[in-house]
Amino acid sequence: MECAINLAEKLATFDQRWSPRTVSEFNGHDIMVVKVLGEFNWHSHPDTDDFFLVLKGTLDIEMREQTVTLGPGEMFIVPKGVEHRPVAREEVHMLLIEPTGTPNTGDRATAAKRQVI
Amino acid sequence: MECAINLAEKLATFDQRWSPRTVSEFNGHDIMVVKVLGEFNWHSHPDTDDFFLVLKGTLDIEMREQTVTLGPGEMFIVPKGVEHRPVAREEVHMLLIEPTGTPNTGDRATAAKRQVI
Repeated sequence: MECAINLAEKLATFDQRWSPRTVSEFNGHDIMVVKVLGEFNWHSHPDTDDFFLVLKGTLDIEMREQTVTLGPGEMFIVPKGVEHRPVAREEVHMLLIEPTGTPNTGDRATAAKRQVI
Repeated sequence: MECAINLAEKLATFDQRWSPRTVSEFNGHDIMVVKVLGEFNWHSHPDTDDFFLVLKGTLDIEMREQTVTLGPGEMFIVPKGVEHRPVAREEVHMLLIEPTGTPNTGDRATAAKRQVI
């Protein structure tokens, strides 16, 4: 029996920030929810685009040439290879999509462990 | 200059139902918004999972063995090959993700033409 995935309910099950939780899988990608606050590291993903959809709060996606600001119901795709740094001045809840196994920091040594909820 | 993609603003630009509009691209997939009302045809996609995220309204995704009901902020992945029929008893707005070129009806002869907005 498969069920609807309620994103807010999934987000309510954890408090840890910068630690994406996989809620479903799609064509070899993880569908993830995450809570973030503050500045992440500058990084890029050489082999994949990076999907961000903001559900709550306001997120800046800093890139070297420009910054894109996302509020609830707004999304952005960082193209593969483009350096970026997410910055959240308040707690932000997001939906992320990346190929399963993609290191969230761009570096396997520092990446968050995959957690399925 | 790349900009945030506001899903509600994109949806406000058209009224046509069952006619997905591509708002961005991600790893060979189209990110699409769509308005639907009523019953779609029974179909399946032999080569791809099917991503649904409801933004407004309530959608039933009927499958042969069960029905999943999605409200705003709820998502579901129909696994590849699984027959399904979306049914909307009121107008529903959704985010869809499918590999670019996937026929929305499961059949190229009846599929909606790709439209980028």
